Amino acid sequence: MIILGIDPGLATIGYGVIRAEGVRQSVIDYGVITTPAKQPLPSRLKMIYEAVLQLYDRFNPDAVALEELFFNTNITTGIAVAHARGTILTALAQKTENLYEYTPLQVKQSVVGYGRAEKQQVQLMVRSLLNLKETPRPDDAADALAVALCLVNSGMMDKTFRIQ
Amino acid sequence: MIILGIDPGLATIGYGVIRAEGVRQSVIDYGVITTPAKQPLPSRLKMIYEAVLQLYDRFNPDAVALEELFFNTNITTGIAVAHARGTILTALAQKTENLYEYTPLQVKQSVVGYGRAEKQQVQLMVRSLLNLKETPRPDDAADALAVALCLVNSGMMDKTFRIQ
Repeated sequence: MIILGIDPGLATIGYGVIRAEGVRQSVIDYGVITTPAKQPLPSRLKMIYEAVLQLYDRFNPDAVALEELFFNTNITTGIAVAHARGTILTALAQKTENLYEYTPLQVKQSVVGYGRAEKQQVQLMVRSLLNLKETPRPDDAADALAVALCLVNSGMMDKTFRIQ
Repeated sequence: MIILGIDPGLATIGYGVIRAEGVRQSVIDYGVITTPAKQPLPSRLKMIYEAVLQLYDRFNPDAVALEELFFNTNITTGIAVAHARGTILTALAQKTENLYEYTPLQVKQSVVGYGRAEKQQVQLMVRSLLNLKETPRPDDAADALAVALCLVNSGMMDKTFRIQ
């Protein structure tokens, strides 16, 4: 079973693709989609839309896991990310209904076993669980792998996490 | 010159299409796109994406004006609208670069001449400026006509309002 994890953003979108066979998980690919800050917002969203369609077609995943939007102090950044997340979901909705979302807390709980884990702990666990020689870089790609692992651990058929 | 105004939303998206010839403006069409609340978010965004593409193709506007997102007390609604606005911009970006945005304050200032005007005052002015027999309904359609009028009044070539 192939799982695509996505860490939404406007400037940088992390993605991680893993294969889950029974209790074993392995990495197929990971990386980031980036959009240039100097471009107008609509162009950046168009780039994201096309890149996500391509990503989906390249790996043809059985399910996709996204991080839920977490609003911290910066509301302007939050609005920008919400725009991009709408674009990402629009692209994915053209392809599949198997879309799941997890809060950062759920991802940490699932991967580290502790909801308040530090970013570094999450990265170390991602590396360990996926038998990687190095910690995946950049952070956004590691986060995307973590959310993909979270979907596997949560049990794919758990409708609680399906995007409603 | 044909202007498409859009009042973004997830459940209801208002649209208004006007023709501007010199100082005269007239209505071509107005209405709303709606999505059912019981559908999952990705499906609703997909519906919006397709409806906006159709809307654009139907009227082939010279420019499109959108309301800027105004975050009031309800952050959950704000995030949902930001998702939908991302989808709307993604669809429009497939068609044109002539995308402009105005804050609710700018729209009121432009249409009524007073930034703190009540919704009802805006609707009366929209009706008057466009020589309509009745106040456009629902509110979202009236708001979309107001933002289209705002673009005409602001001068289309004013890059200040181009979506960046």
